[in-house]
Amino acid sequence: MLVTFEGIEAAGKSTLIAALVGVLNGRGESVLVTKEPGGTPLGEALRGVFLDPSLRIDPVAEAMLLNASRAQLVADVIVPALRRGEAVLCDRFFDSTIAYQGYGRELDVEQLLELCLAATQRIAPDLTFLVDIPVEVSAERVRARGGADRLEREDALFHARVHAGYHQLARRFPQRYVVLDGTLAPQTLAAEALAVLDRRRVVS
Amino acid sequence: MLVTFEGIEAAGKSTLIAALVGVLNGRGESVLVTKEPGGTPLGEALRGVFLDPSLRIDPVAEAMLLNASRAQLVADVIVPALRRGEAVLCDRFFDSTIAYQGYGRELDVEQLLELCLAATQRIAPDLTFLVDIPVEVSAERVRARGGADRLEREDALFHARVHAGYHQLARRFPQRYVVLDGTLAPQTLAAEALAVLDRRRVVS
Repeated sequence: MLVTFEGIEAAGKSTLIAALVGVLNGRGESVLVTKEPGGTPLGEALRGVFLDPSLRIDPVAEAMLLNASRAQLVADVIVPALRRGEAVLCDRFFDSTIAYQGYGRELDVEQLLELCLAATQRIAPDLTFLVDIPVEVSAERVRARGGADRLEREDALFHARVHAGYHQLARRFPQRYVVLDGTLAPQTLAAEALAVLDRRRVVS
Repeated sequence: MLVTFEGIEAAGKSTLIAALVGVLNGRGESVLVTKEPGGTPLGEALRGVFLDPSLRIDPVAEAMLLNASRAQLVADVIVPALRRGEAVLCDRFFDSTIAYQGYGRELDVEQLLELCLAATQRIAPDLTFLVDIPVEVSAERVRARGGADRLEREDALFHARVHAGYHQLARRFPQRYVVLDGTLAPQTLAAEALAVLDRRRVVS
């Protein structure tokens, strides 16, 4: 089963994934954890290019670059893990491209979805957690963290479009989307996510 | 007008372009010269990733990566130049992706063509020179040059498929394709190409 974690900057996805991995491993369950862009040597090289604040990247080029990283990750990591019957937890997946490049940068959402499915061998997530926080909370957390990267430097309207785009996706794909409140205490958030995983029997 | 130069490794594309630029500039004509992958800061970063012999790149990821570089080049360089009325000479363009990733790596050619057109804002070349040399001549020239990159290290069957793929493209797009004999002396080759450019009034 492929479980993806989505949300705007600093929503708490990585912390949530770390907490889930801790609990699952504590139960003797192994999970494969990966992230986008990245997760392979090619993906890491492309992630460096993608986040470089000195580069100006055209929106279509950005979508292609992210899907290059994604195609490699799917071919080398996700498909083999799913074939082995492992659960895969992925920090961002193609919904990020739809939210950021589609809704955020206003590229055509349907064409982007096709591009993403071409990159993933038409694999879509089985379950997607949208870790939802208000745009203002995100901005505050990014400021507190310091050193904003290329995407984090986008203006408030961009982030508002991405935020709204995620909610559109959650409404469009209700079978796989679960919206979690990212302003909850980390343990509470992890407990809610874990309850969903257990209910859907994602891991044994 | 967009003029592209295609062919297998070491066909003599760059030498031909340099000769044409020399003659055209000598006539007082300016041309914009660029190449793929590359031609922009993003493109150069991606070119470095693409040619890195230490990276294993999935064919779909490779096609996406090349189109990321291409989308940036089209948006930042080619479209503005065409709008200014300049002639653009491009060392490789999307036919390379069709020949190498489509015919060479055996990805679906029609899907690739769609992907390429999405990257180029649906712009296709007005004129394409296929600088044609036998696969054995290419292998010999690459050996003589030394230091083969990731693509040049592919096996002979791959290069034979790319070579045949270019001829398929030339038959499919006869209006824009002109096949030149890359085993001719460089000055003869340049004179033939120049005659075609003059006949089609590509410059002035």
